[in-house]
Formats: sequence, C-alpha cells, structure tokens
Amino acid sequence: MAKVVPGVGPKFPQVVVLFGATGDLARRKLLPGLFHLASAGFIPGCRIVGVSLDSLSAEQFRTAAREAMEEFSPRKFAPEDWNAFAAGLDYVPISAGPAALRAAIDRAEQSFSGESRRLHYLSVPPNAALSAVRMLADAGVVERSRIVMEKPFGTDLASAVSLNSKLHEVFSEDQIFRIDHFLGKEPAQNILAFRFANGLFEPIWNRNFIDHIQIDVPETLGLGKRSGFYEATGAYRDMVVTHLFQILAFVAMEPPTALEPTSIGEEKNKVFRSMLPITPSDVVRGQYTGYRQEEGVNPESETETFIALKCSIDNWRWAGVPFFLRTGKRLAEGQRIISIAFREPPKSMFPANSGVGAQGPDHLTFDLADASKMSLSFYGKRPGPGMRLDKLSLQFAMRDTGLIGDVLEAYERLILDAMRGDHTLFTTARGIERLWEVSTPLLESPPPVRLYAPGSWGPNAIHQLVAPRAWRLPFERTWRDPNQLGA
Amino acid sequence: MAKVVPGVGPKFPQVVVLFGATGDLARRKLLPGLFHLASAGFIPGCRIVGVSLDSLSAEQFRTAAREAMEEFSPRKFAPEDWNAFAAGLDYVPISAGPAALRAAIDRAEQSFSGESRRLHYLSVPPNAALSAVRMLADAGVVERSRIVMEKPFGTDLASAVSLNSKLHEVFSEDQIFRIDHFLGKEPAQNILAFRFANGLFEPIWNRNFIDHIQIDVPETLGLGKRSGFYEATGAYRDMVVTHLFQILAFVAMEPPTALEPTSIGEEKNKVFRSMLPITPSDVVRGQYTGYRQEEGVNPESETETFIALKCSIDNWRWAGVPFFLRTGKRLAEGQRIISIAFREPPKSMFPANSGVGAQGPDHLTFDLADASKMSLSFYGKRPGPGMRLDKLSLQFAMRDTGLIGDVLEAYERLILDAMRGDHTLFTTARGIERLWEVSTPLLESPPPVRLYAPGSWGPNAIHQLVAPRAWRLPFERTWRDPNQLGA
Repeated sequence: MAKVVPGVGPKFPQVVVLFGATGDLARRKLLPGLFHLASAGFIPGCRIVGVSLDSLSAEQFRTAAREAMEEFSPRKFAPEDWNAFAAGLDYVPISAGPAALRAAIDRAEQSFSGESRRLHYLSVPPNAALSAVRMLADAGVVERSRIVMEKPFGTDLASAVSLNSKLHEVFSEDQIFRIDHFLGKEPAQNILAFRFANGLFEPIWNRNFIDHIQIDVPETLGLGKRSGFYEATGAYRDMVVTHLFQILAFVAMEPPTALEPTSIGEEKNKVFRSMLPITPSDVVRGQYTGYRQEEGVNPESETETFIALKCSIDNWRWAGVPFFLRTGKRLAEGQRIISIAFREPPKSMFPANSGVGAQGPDHLTFDLADASKMSLSFYGKRPGPGMRLDKLSLQFAMRDTGLIGDVLEAYERLILDAMRGDHTLFTTARGIERLWEVSTPLLESPPPVRLYAPGSWGPNAIHQLVAPRAWRLPFERTWRDPNQLGA
Repeated sequence: MAKVVPGVGPKFPQVVVLFGATGDLARRKLLPGLFHLASAGFIPGCRIVGVSLDSLSAEQFRTAAREAMEEFSPRKFAPEDWNAFAAGLDYVPISAGPAALRAAIDRAEQSFSGESRRLHYLSVPPNAALSAVRMLADAGVVERSRIVMEKPFGTDLASAVSLNSKLHEVFSEDQIFRIDHFLGKEPAQNILAFRFANGLFEPIWNRNFIDHIQIDVPETLGLGKRSGFYEATGAYRDMVVTHLFQILAFVAMEPPTALEPTSIGEEKNKVFRSMLPITPSDVVRGQYTGYRQEEGVNPESETETFIALKCSIDNWRWAGVPFFLRTGKRLAEGQRIISIAFREPPKSMFPANSGVGAQGPDHLTFDLADASKMSLSFYGKRPGPGMRLDKLSLQFAMRDTGLIGDVLEAYERLILDAMRGDHTLFTTARGIERLWEVSTPLLESPPPVRLYAPGSWGPNAIHQLVAPRAWRLPFERTWRDPNQLGA
C-alpha cells in the first residue's frame, strides 16, 4: 500500500459496512473506489464487510470484488495492492443476522491497532434501507459510525418526513450522509470556488444582471434494466429533487460565512426555503415513445422519462429570474450544463444591423462533464472595416492546464468526505423535506405526459416554457465554434 | 481593379495629396495601404499626388512607389492591379509651388467623371506641417477636402494651442483628422465593442470593483535612425500623450449615446477633463545606457527613452483607481496590453492555505497585438480532494475564430475613416490641448532620468510606483500557462 496522503482523508482507520455489496453500484463504483482510496493512501486503514441478500462466503465475495475491479476500475492496479486490500474484505449475508454482522465488524476493528471508525454504506433500494438501519441498530454498531444513504430520500413530503424520523430514531442527523454524486464532481465544487474566490462575478450574480439560468442534463441512454424501479419514480424524483436542485442551490446560494459544511448547509437550505412551490403549469412532463412497451412498465404508464420546468427563488437576489431545469432519457445529446444568461445592454448606441444582441444574450456556461470546462460568450468586433459584432467566447478547459492528476471520482470524493464527517456536499433532512414540500403541487396534480421521439430534445412544449427565451444549444457545439453560439 | 466594396468606404472618388511621399512612413505604410484600399475596391476611384522636397518626375515617383510596394507590402499583388493604380500616381516637388500642386490636383479630378473629394495627408515632421498647410491654402484646395495630421500635435500646451489655431485659420476642425495608428488596430476598437455590447462587464467597470488598470507598451527596439527626432521628443511626448492616453480614454470613458464620432469624442474629452494633472513624483523617467552615445544625441541628454507613471481620473467612475502606464525602448519584451485588475473578494470563507488571492487579483487582459487576444483570470478549484485554489484563465484569441479574413491594417482603416469623414478614431483639438494641460507639471519639472540596462524592464523605481501592486507579467507568458498567472 502507498503511504498515507496527509490532510485529505480521515484520521482513523475505517470499517466500511457495505449493504448491497453485490449490487450494480457496489461493483461499478463503490468497491473500485474504496480500493483506490485505500491503496493510494487516502485512508489510514480500511476493511470492508460486504452485506447483501446473496449467500456468499468471504472468499466468494473477494472473487466477485476482484472481477468487478477488472470489469469496472478506470485505473490499472498492482496485484500486490489488490491482495493487501482483499485481505481486508469480509462478507455477511443478511440472513446471518445482526450478531454475525457485529462479529464481523468486531473482527475487522480488532485488526487495527488503535481507534477506528465505521462507515455504513446503504447501497440498497429505498424499501430495504430501513431494514438495514434496523439491522445496524440491532447489531449495536451505531456508535463511532456514519451512514451513507442513496437517493431517493423519500418520494414525497410525507414519506421523506417518515423516513427521516425513522432514521433519526437510530442515527443522529450529524451521522447521516445523503449522497448525491453530482455534487462530488469537480465542476460542481468549482462553482463554489468560482463564485466566491473571485471579485468579478459576485457583483453581477443577481437579478439586476442575470436574465435567467438553465440547468440542463439531457441523457441519451434509455432505462435498460432500471425500468421497473424507474416506473415508480420518474425523472422528477430521480433527477430533479436530488441532483438538479442541489446544483441549483450551489448556483443560487448567498455567500456562506465559511466554506464549511454548516455554513454551506444553512445557505443551501435558505435557497430551498425561498423556492416557490412548483406550479404544474410551469412543468412539461414527457415520455419517450416505446417506454410503455419496456419490461416492468405499465402499458398505460404516466411516468415521465423527461421533465422540464421553471422554478423561482423569491428572495432579494433572484426574484424575477426564472431557473429552467431540464432532464430526461433518450434525448438527442447527453450533457450536464449550467448556463447563466446575462441581461442585454442597451443596444441603441450601436449602428443598425451591427449584430449586437442578434445571437442572444451573453452566457457564462459551466460544463459539468468530468473535466471542467467553462465558456463566457460576449459580443466582439468582427475584424475588418465598420462595426459588425459577432458572438465570441472566452474559454477554459481544465484539461489544458496540466493540473488534472489522479483526480478522485465523484463517489471516491464523497466517501472520503463522509469518512471525515464533512457534510459540505451532502443534503440535510430539512433541505430534502423542504424540496418535497415545494414539489407537492406538482406531485398532487402532475400535468399529463407528452410523448416525444427518442433522439429528440423532448416534447415541443419545452419551447413555450422558456419563450421568448431559448434553450441553450449543446455546449460542445457552442464551445469552440463562434458561429454556433447563438441559440 | 476589384469592384467596389459597398458600405465601408467613401462615397466619392478621392484625390490623395501625400506630403512626405518619399518618406519612410509613406513607403512602408501609406502607399501600400492606399494601393490595397483602391485595388480591393474600398474606394470608388483614387488618384495620388505625391509631394516632397525631392525633385522627382511622376515616372520616378511611380518607380519609387513600386519599389516600396515590393519591399513593404504585406500582401501579394497582381501586376495589372498595380499598373491601374500607378496610372493614377502623379508627383509635385515642393519647389514647384502651389500652382503646380493645384494643376496636378485639377488633372486628377478631371480624370473622374463626377464629384470627388480631396484627402491631404501630411506625413511630414512637425516643423514642416504648417508650411504644407500654407501651400494647400495657397493652392486653393481646402474645399471638399480633409486633412490628416501625424503626431506629435505640439510639444506642450502653448505649442499645441498655437498649432491648432494656425490650422484652424485654414481648415475647420471637422476637416482635421489627427491620426493615431494605435486606435486603428482591431483590438483597440474591440474594447468599445466589448465594453458596450455586453451586459456583463459594464456593471463592474468602475471603482467599486476595479482595483487598478495598467496600460503597458514596452518595446524591444532602440531608436536607430530616429535618435535625432527622438532626442527632442522623448517617450512621454512620443507615446503617452498620443497613443497611451487615447487607449486610456477608450477604457475609461462613459458609455456614449451612440457609437458615432461626436458622442465618442465628447466622452473621450470628458475623461481627459477629469484627469488630474500628472504629478512629477508619480512619474519614473528612464534612459537606457548607451543612448547618449547614439548619433544625434546630446552626450548629456536628459531625454527619457522610458516612462512609467500613475495617473488618476477624478470622476464618479474612477476616483481612487490608479491607472499605471508604461512604455519605453530597448526593454525586455515587446507587448501592448491593457490589464484590468479587479478588487479581491473577502477571503475569510476559504480555509487557511487554500491559495485564494495568493497569486494576485483577477485580471481581464487585452492584448493589442494585431490578432486580438483576451484573457480573464480567475481562481478555480484544483482537481482533487480538499479546496485548493489555482489561478486559471478563460481565454480568447481572434485567430481561433476563423473570422480574420483580409483585415485592414491600422493605417488603412484610419485613411478610409478619414475619407468617409468619420472622426471616431481621431483626436480633437480640445482633447489634445487638455492632454498637454494635464502634462504641464511634468513637462515643467520632470524628475531626473534614471539609467536602465537595455533588455531590462526599466529602472527599479517602477516597482515602488505600483507598490503594493505589481506590474503584470508579459501576456504571452501568462496566457496559456496557469502557473505564471500570478504576478
């Protein structure tokens, strides 16, 4: 194992209790991520107790984990590092009960020479989460532990309140980490740095200078095997309440007193409290043609695979500035962008036909793809006689800087933060309950789903939603090509 | 000849009376420029009457002009285009007197079928300008004409007032075009487009958000054959009063009511009127070692080949924001940049040692080199765990846009504007007189020159001038390399 990287990881060795240890997320992200964190020295000791419904021996679990590494790890790894890590893998089937789980955790802890901490990671469906919590309580392993929950955190206000209250019977809010892997991505965190480390943008980051904001996360993939889960969830619960509203909070929040969890959490919650309830008439729900024929889907399903909506934050900074959110499956292109459209200046000083404003407003655009990119479009003078303006852009790509080394994946970053007890990138119970509260009008009276063709940008109604504004073109097309910056 | 390019050139054919027709500027820039404007179709007819002290025939002048083309024209040209242009070249030696000049102009005008205009271009030393004006008056060719003057426009307030008043005896201010080729460059004009066509920057373009501004025009060349002229002029008169203050006015002016000459001229003059007199203690004058040994230079010369100064614009937008200007000969690197340093945000929200602010303030930087470049530096999150900030930058290069076609050279652009009667990029009598007025304290009590080594950045005192701020590093070094963005 590499020596410990100082300062960024937890102080104590960790026993990770991984519920859903044989599931898709564990195999794709969590086991490879934990291996990387341990072998790169971010954690001063790491043992894992896998838990799931499957009846496996510890040895079989090690083999399965090794296979997952080979299939999904983005990095090459040395066999000796794997062997050292695998020696710390244990397994307890759910059927063995709390006592067996306790025994496995005790064994793991005894292998460390001194103090250690526990991280319970619940990579299980919503209906299994509470029984996992109960098993942890019964095993008596709540102390010195933190618990990571996967979305969805409820499906409406009542279920979220109920879930949180049952959670709080066992774990205190301090111990709970509701994970949202969007926020673990570098570009999401870069929003905070960009907004608050620079004297330039904060003065114009308000309704006086910003016309509207778009958070646009179209996906090209369909649902595949997830149709069954998705059918009961839909795009709004799956994507908006968790990922998109969280990103929105980073974009919209007031400067916190410090870039530390409590201050950031307070400011995020203030944004959610100032959000107006989502009006069904401000929402376009869509469903791609063919969805109803998929396995596990009701042939008359009204579940949305696409959603676009307008939401409003009624505070001094944002009153009157619409936030347009869009996400969906099987759309034309995949991307994750935030684009800030600035208000247009008076144009009368320019000669007629100068082209000022003709290609839409200036935009500051963040691409949340793994390697951060940003662009800031502006009108500049076309070289040559006269004053003809073209839309040009200032551009930044983290890739060009040489600063990208061995960057942590989103899950790795978030697991490390949870081990350190840092809530910055996690959602609070209050925050999530407020989001369900503002969702109530939509959830109670959802507009009918409109069909859209796979490979399109969603139902036509999305254009009326933003009119007279327009949806921003895909970032990749607007980034390097000044002639595409218009829409 | 190519057909006429509509809309950007003058309406009528032009007779250009070129004083100094055999001089350096005429050969390098003016004759090649006029040829390009005529042959590319920007002017609907162009005949040139060369005038100078040399005794040449028209034929000899044509040959000399052809040689100049071959030596200096940046573009390839077709012999048939040259022949068409050369047929319109005539020549009158000064010694032939006003009547001969009048006759040559008449001949040229008769070659056009209808109405035409005259452009008198005075590419002559300051002491020869007024006799050229008198010759034009005596020849009776003031009507339907415009006159282009080269810098310097006087050497102090009294001489400028006197020069302008003598000029105004013959030409009205409307007819006079004081040329400053810096303002003919695309990037200078782009400042106006950038500031006023975008909703983003104007709100922060003031003392609340800007800490200071640098206009930095170091040159690597020495004086060569210009020492004699330069000895009586110096860097302040040669560069600051004309070029640098003009650029400063574009950066500092209020939004004009229209991007047209009168409005822009008014706003530029308002900037000059709000400038505080230049305090000698805010000025560093330098002279490179070896200058006093050059031909035509006084061995005890106190002429500055370098100047750096602080100036202040005492209006609501700029009070308290220092403008630092620097230019000089034989310096380490050549560049022409404007850099706007923004005020720093509160830093206490960032963890200690995050690096926020450690590499100086955010800068918006314009490179006035021929192909516009801009960069906007900002602090962004270094990829990886924790919150470490690095100075990064958004970048724009006109070269990357594909929009650069057959761009007019600065002189070509300005000649075309003068032919069209467009004063936007020219200086007014009032403006230039005000600049000499604010220069009076410095001209009356110049601080002693300090020697500097050729290839350096000037005398050491320049650092005290800007302290605690720093001079911005050369643009090329800060542009692509995020690790150099600091200073």
